[in-house]
Amino acid sequence: MMLRLGKLMISSGETNSDMRYACGVSTPDDIIWFSADAVKAIVASALEYDRVKSERRSDTAVFSDSEFGGPKHLDIVRNIALRYRLDGFTVPGDFPLLTAEKLRESGLVIEPQEGDFFPEREFKELDEVEKITRSLRIAEAGCRRAFEVLRESDISKEGTLIWQSAVLTSEILRSEIDCTMLKLGCLPTGTICAGAVQGSQPHNQGSGALYANTPIVMDIFPRSATTGYWGDLTRTVVRGRAGDIVKKAYDAVFEARELAKEQLCAGANPSEIHNLAASSMESKGFYTGFGDSGNFGFFHSLGHGVGLDIHENPRLSPRNPEPLKGGEVVTIEPGLYYAEWGGIRLEDMAYIPEKGKAVILTEIETFLEL
Amino acid sequence: MMLRLGKLMISSGETNSDMRYACGVSTPDDIIWFSADAVKAIVASALEYDRVKSERRSDTAVFSDSEFGGPKHLDIVRNIALRYRLDGFTVPGDFPLLTAEKLRESGLVIEPQEGDFFPEREFKELDEVEKITRSLRIAEAGCRRAFEVLRESDISKEGTLIWQSAVLTSEILRSEIDCTMLKLGCLPTGTICAGAVQGSQPHNQGSGALYANTPIVMDIFPRSATTGYWGDLTRTVVRGRAGDIVKKAYDAVFEARELAKEQLCAGANPSEIHNLAASSMESKGFYTGFGDSGNFGFFHSLGHGVGLDIHENPRLSPRNPEPLKGGEVVTIEPGLYYAEWGGIRLEDMAYIPEKGKAVILTEIETFLEL
Repeated sequence: MMLRLGKLMISSGETNSDMRYACGVSTPDDIIWFSADAVKAIVASALEYDRVKSERRSDTAVFSDSEFGGPKHLDIVRNIALRYRLDGFTVPGDFPLLTAEKLRESGLVIEPQEGDFFPEREFKELDEVEKITRSLRIAEAGCRRAFEVLRESDISKEGTLIWQSAVLTSEILRSEIDCTMLKLGCLPTGTICAGAVQGSQPHNQGSGALYANTPIVMDIFPRSATTGYWGDLTRTVVRGRAGDIVKKAYDAVFEARELAKEQLCAGANPSEIHNLAASSMESKGFYTGFGDSGNFGFFHSLGHGVGLDIHENPRLSPRNPEPLKGGEVVTIEPGLYYAEWGGIRLEDMAYIPEKGKAVILTEIETFLEL
Repeated sequence: MMLRLGKLMISSGETNSDMRYACGVSTPDDIIWFSADAVKAIVASALEYDRVKSERRSDTAVFSDSEFGGPKHLDIVRNIALRYRLDGFTVPGDFPLLTAEKLRESGLVIEPQEGDFFPEREFKELDEVEKITRSLRIAEAGCRRAFEVLRESDISKEGTLIWQSAVLTSEILRSEIDCTMLKLGCLPTGTICAGAVQGSQPHNQGSGALYANTPIVMDIFPRSATTGYWGDLTRTVVRGRAGDIVKKAYDAVFEARELAKEQLCAGANPSEIHNLAASSMESKGFYTGFGDSGNFGFFHSLGHGVGLDIHENPRLSPRNPEPLKGGEVVTIEPGLYYAEWGGIRLEDMAYIPEKGKAVILTEIETFLEL
């Protein structure tokens, strides 16, 4: 006998992008989303009902929890199953274990889904591309503010940057970027301003004084407070003059990025594009490996999908041979990292249409010295 | 036969406060925490190992994932069980279902825990109280900035506030508060600046023009970017002159807050304190109920615990008769909400010592008109 299974999520759109995607609206508290045959619906408490009703996706119904015997989630889910004559639900892999077991105890089938709960999230509608682009523009505004602060900075005898009569630190530069983005409606969450050798660790946020004549990696990824979509942008600049090795590395990363962007289109193989960028940098003498001070060279993926999650499918990585299909929004962000002098990373974003070349979404200029 | 169970979590400290609490450090990616007899340990990837090692709790060991056959989480967990001769693990109720099932398929017992995974999180060490207080001070700095902006504002003929030659909106006031807090090292996440009737909905963030002579509710709850601890503060002010009903409501909320603060001590019953605050406001003519425009009066809890989560135990609610034990940090935030004129909420924080009266952590003054 075929089981009749609906789909079910219980979570908050704040912490779960599948929930935000399905509902089209985000709530701080956990709410219930389900589908059964052609019905898609949200069950919300009285406190959230009005807002959910006005902001939800138009193809999705809203019920007050009292209609399903709420407020307890377990009762609501059991009543959904009764009303729609379901044997149970498919749930996301990260569905909470305890809730699953309690639902099973009351006779429901709960089947966790392997992989993405909404594989279609990988392929963006045009209004999603617009929302991502709007967040990217705000990242660019933050980046321009950083350029401004760096240009206004003087260089002390010790080589530190001096801005508004004080030593310019990663923290100050970051807060200038972040405040700019906050005022434009984005939430800054982990802006990287890593100078000198700190920039040789891709995850180092940066701290302390910033110096002239050495690269500063700025990775800026704001999330829209209203839409939930992210933008992602990285620039690396030198206030003053860059050394020869830094210039050479910058040129290699720049060329790898442009080369990769040209390859992007529906049908292209992500692992091949990654490898092309990697070998282009290697051909200029920038090798990748593992030494006394850890990883060096180009040791992360070329890029990743961006949407309601900052990192989502597709991965532009050597381990992803699955051809692009069209509809994806991805970053292209080659980088080079060496403990001796720091790091260079340059990141643009692109939309892959179903036909033709990728549309580059990033507008801000790329340069090294300022 | 007694089962030998360890404890296990797999998650990111960014989204899971139990993980942050156990590790003393937060990582963007999922890591593994486990305990087995007296051993507590973190298993981290090479990318995170160094930072985790330097920032972790001193009573907690760190292993590189390669020591347990990583990087795959399932392999690591199986190898932990082998090395410590465990039959399985107790896990938090929100442990991901799919991971639990795969671990069970390989013969491990996985038991979700009902209720809090670390009930001791409710009772703060003094260094935690200090971290919370530091975030509260930053909330106060944000609030002082708002007072400044409101005092600098002129009143237009239409009654809107004018600041720096433009109409002052909720969005502008919020970004002034949020930028102040960002520069001091906190992440602002949902600051409420709700004027006039918007303030009658406790969850309304506020939008559009702000007006003179009507209350503006400002609920400010920043999280430290470094420690992860929250502060929580609400003030309600009127630029210009408050009407009689607003003044009366303000006085009632103020008195209810002070009355509640006096009752706070180890041994006190949260539901009784809530009811005392409620009946104090009711005795001044401010009734609670449900009408055509929804809930009115005092229809939320008096307060809640604050720590690594903005809302945690204990709840100061009519449904919590469990006496306070000492060690809790709580908010005391009575409010009154009426669709006719808006809302008043006044929120302080307090630490409950094991003996004696509550220590009020909030320093910023409370007043109505400015």
